[in-house]
Amino acid sequence: MKLLVIGTLAFDSVETPHDRRERAIGGSATYFAHAAASFGPVRVVGVVGTDFPEPALASFHARGIDTEGVEVVEGESFYWAARYEADWNTRHTLETRLNVFADFDPKVPESYRDAEFVFLANSEPKVQMKALDQCTKPKLVVADTMNLWIEHALDDLKALMKRVDGLVLNDEEARMLTGNSNLIQAAAQILEMGPNFVVLKKGEHGAFLVARDHRFAVPAYPVEEVIDPTGAGDAFAGGFMGHIAATGNADPATLRRAMLYGTVTASHSVQGFSVDELEKLDPRGIERRYADLHAFVAV
Amino acid sequence: MKLLVIGTLAFDSVETPHDRRERAIGGSATYFAHAAASFGPVRVVGVVGTDFPEPALASFHARGIDTEGVEVVEGESFYWAARYEADWNTRHTLETRLNVFADFDPKVPESYRDAEFVFLANSEPKVQMKALDQCTKPKLVVADTMNLWIEHALDDLKALMKRVDGLVLNDEEARMLTGNSNLIQAAAQILEMGPNFVVLKKGEHGAFLVARDHRFAVPAYPVEEVIDPTGAGDAFAGGFMGHIAATGNADPATLRRAMLYGTVTASHSVQGFSVDELEKLDPRGIERRYADLHAFVAV
Repeated sequence: MKLLVIGTLAFDSVETPHDRRERAIGGSATYFAHAAASFGPVRVVGVVGTDFPEPALASFHARGIDTEGVEVVEGESFYWAARYEADWNTRHTLETRLNVFADFDPKVPESYRDAEFVFLANSEPKVQMKALDQCTKPKLVVADTMNLWIEHALDDLKALMKRVDGLVLNDEEARMLTGNSNLIQAAAQILEMGPNFVVLKKGEHGAFLVARDHRFAVPAYPVEEVIDPTGAGDAFAGGFMGHIAATGNADPATLRRAMLYGTVTASHSVQGFSVDELEKLDPRGIERRYADLHAFVAV
Repeated sequence: MKLLVIGTLAFDSVETPHDRRERAIGGSATYFAHAAASFGPVRVVGVVGTDFPEPALASFHARGIDTEGVEVVEGESFYWAARYEADWNTRHTLETRLNVFADFDPKVPESYRDAEFVFLANSEPKVQMKALDQCTKPKLVVADTMNLWIEHALDDLKALMKRVDGLVLNDEEARMLTGNSNLIQAAAQILEMGPNFVVLKKGEHGAFLVARDHRFAVPAYPVEEVIDPTGAGDAFAGGFMGHIAATGNADPATLRRAMLYGTVTASHSVQGFSVDELEKLDPRGIERRYADLHAFVAV
């Protein structure tokens, strides 16, 4: 399993209707890596400031997450603050400070370059492309994106889309990218832009996989209590890519199971702040919930 | 298959972002019966005015729908007018005229009373109870309800809930009935009120089945184009109950398949105005889409 992720490592301050957490460890690469780590080793490319705590990096290592590609730069780490409304669907971003991430120039270490499975977590498409350019043997490349890049870097995003196998985005972003409000039609349009498959995340309503010749739907795992939805999408991607990398291929049956594994890791993620729950996970915990989710959807 | 439905037969005027239809045949019993008719004979209890067109009743008969229990009363039929916003989720009711339905006193004909499978489509809980009281051999009773009765007839609804096997309602109604915003917790609370299972309809996001010892999720069938979502919930119930009645039992595996059949009939329903699409359906059309939906959800 040669899995690589490039993305953010950050401090998140999160306020929910029930609780709050200041400057917890977050970021797309962090959530992804901790979710994927239950499936095998993960390599991370990112940047942190000198304020990023040593124990956080130690907890990466304890889970088999390689941080050789995490550059430490003089200054402060990416910082993000947000507040969720009682319905969980409405999120107000209170503050975003890119800090050292503003000048992020991804360097994929020599030892990472043969990664076969590459996840380009949400960031500027140019940065994602630059990281991808350094990978010498990518077998499956999946990218995430967001409304910001759809609005302000559409050409770069379109160029990137021609080079990825899969695109992961949420329903609102898919509508924005295509101008089509029907998700199924939007997915078809996205496939015309390059990727072989698209994963449409719908939060509490689950996710769709749409490929050229097959499609698949999975509901969210019904958690009794959501503590913090931050990072659920990246945790989903971590379980999804983790299973694919561990299996070594991306045939339709593997992709379907990967959708379930992503749903499992996302559901654990939202049951705690930061990566509190993902850090505790092991393959047995994953398989237990996978079986439960399978029973929930099997006809 | 001894399946009975009690509900409304109406005229609907519907305006969508793309089209409109004046005084089309509608009503909960109409949608239910046309959806269930592809699975076997259906008996309808309801009331219409003298304005209800003979061809509409003839189309019921052509599909094996028995209307002996449809009383014709001097006056106008139930009339409902609504307008949908572009997102399809926002519906504005423009007008509701109960007309002859205002004094509806359900009479279950002698020949209907041995019905084993009974669907009490949305109406005043007292009326639903009155119909149920006339059934002598109900094996499985499922009721639908709405926010109006949760607000204004809660005691009657609670009394009814103790006598039904299943309750069908949408997510918003489940939250309203229990005061719990977490759907899974809300479903558990509803089971404590009486039913053995609850079907939570989430529109374009599919549906949940929650029973005491099992639960199941199904996504909506991905239709390329929605023409009119009116009646989708009743069409779902028709496919759901139709399959159960045809099978003759309601064990967990049957309930799961019934959720898929309900999804199939609902998806056909929204692809046309009124019961235009349901009227055209036959068992082969149902099985074709069932296979397609099964492929969409099978892991």
